[in-house]
Amino acid sequence: MTGRLTIIGLGPGPDRQITPEAKAALAEAKWLLGYGPYLNRLTPGPGQTILPTDNREEAARAAQALDLTAQGETVAMVTGGDPGVFAMAAAVVEQVEQGPPAWRALDIQVIPGITAMLAVAARVGAPLGHDFCALSLSDNLKPWPVVERRLRAAAEGGFVIALYNPRSKARPWQMEAAFTLLRTLLPGTVPVIFGRAVGRPDENLVFTDLARADATQVDMSTCVLIGSDQTKLVERPGREPLVYTPRSIAAS
Amino acid sequence: MTGRLTIIGLGPGPDRQITPEAKAALAEAKWLLGYGPYLNRLTPGPGQTILPTDNREEAARAAQALDLTAQGETVAMVTGGDPGVFAMAAAVVEQVEQGPPAWRALDIQVIPGITAMLAVAARVGAPLGHDFCALSLSDNLKPWPVVERRLRAAAEGGFVIALYNPRSKARPWQMEAAFTLLRTLLPGTVPVIFGRAVGRPDENLVFTDLARADATQVDMSTCVLIGSDQTKLVERPGREPLVYTPRSIAAS
Repeated sequence: MTGRLTIIGLGPGPDRQITPEAKAALAEAKWLLGYGPYLNRLTPGPGQTILPTDNREEAARAAQALDLTAQGETVAMVTGGDPGVFAMAAAVVEQVEQGPPAWRALDIQVIPGITAMLAVAARVGAPLGHDFCALSLSDNLKPWPVVERRLRAAAEGGFVIALYNPRSKARPWQMEAAFTLLRTLLPGTVPVIFGRAVGRPDENLVFTDLARADATQVDMSTCVLIGSDQTKLVERPGREPLVYTPRSIAAS
Repeated sequence: MTGRLTIIGLGPGPDRQITPEAKAALAEAKWLLGYGPYLNRLTPGPGQTILPTDNREEAARAAQALDLTAQGETVAMVTGGDPGVFAMAAAVVEQVEQGPPAWRALDIQVIPGITAMLAVAARVGAPLGHDFCALSLSDNLKPWPVVERRLRAAAEGGFVIALYNPRSKARPWQMEAAFTLLRTLLPGTVPVIFGRAVGRPDENLVFTDLARADATQVDMSTCVLIGSDQTKLVERPGREPLVYTPRSIAAS
């Protein structure tokens, strides 16, 4: 009786962006755990049981998955995007570290997926074409001064910035505070993209710039891309613009 | 006669990590352009022509793809990993910006893929589980002082660091110089991972730490992950360790 736990990324939404590896791992699992909206994207097969949990119960959900695996079950922990980027893989490994020693013997595999920033970037061109960073704007799990310090380091370092978890009903002011800080560090002309549900029927895409970026257009499911001072917008008559960050920086 | 250009990411190597979207775009293309080793991963169908180019001819390859598309052809620009991360998408958009105005009217679509750092991270746990950055260590296209400034910003900002293009025969010293700089900024105990050909038969994975990291074990195809001071290694008897960066940072 050997259990197995796979931690699976479904990508940003469309089925066509789910890898065959992820599909195969889903098909093999007897138990499908995860945040409800991700599990709703799946059609369970015969003999599969879906166990949805709330988004704030990550530690408990990880422990439940490990417990089932230790009982010999085949378990899939399902996430959107990539499971290693602000998602469940870290929560599971944290439980392995803190839980019973037997959990360290379990067969655990993380299966990568297309994370939101890659999908949004692809949709608009190549804004992540040079050095970039990914930052969660949530201060639920880290103090706001840490977020500010990282935004400052990213902007001063010349990184393009991808923001995850930018704004929610419980965190209404952080996105605007981030724009206000970044406006002191970067030109107002820097391209900014809001990408939500990219590739899905309810896709919402906003092209703006740092000076005009309106935080109220952003929600928890939006990935926000903020250019560096090198990022450019290429206008196209009759088409959406293309945004890219050149691969080269000339010596100054 | 309407041409179409797709810029496609094949992921890090294994076919099971190529999305259905990428497969469909490959199947539709009449012309397959790209760096030879990526194209070697494909079996061209009837009516498909493969046009391999050298790795250093990115601008010319992008212009050739746009030129064929402008002639009404269906063209795929093939890359490994994700086309938007240190790959061809930025080169193509740059050519759109600099080329004939007619190129701005073309149908161009970027199709995301699993980029190397996500595959390496998944392979070892969740080292990118919190804020991180992706940095090309090549100074072919940017001055070395810019690389140093960004390494410093990333380390001081507390980001986990993913390094692409870390070392080649023509750039033998930059990886060691980066480790030397980072050793002045981060504890020597910070976990470091070298991931090469992850998921392929010739996979090579090294678990080390910043103090002991040996640059000579790294080549151009290695993705190097360097933890933040929060990143942990979880030992497992009889199994490889798991590496993760916790989602939480306590208020100090």
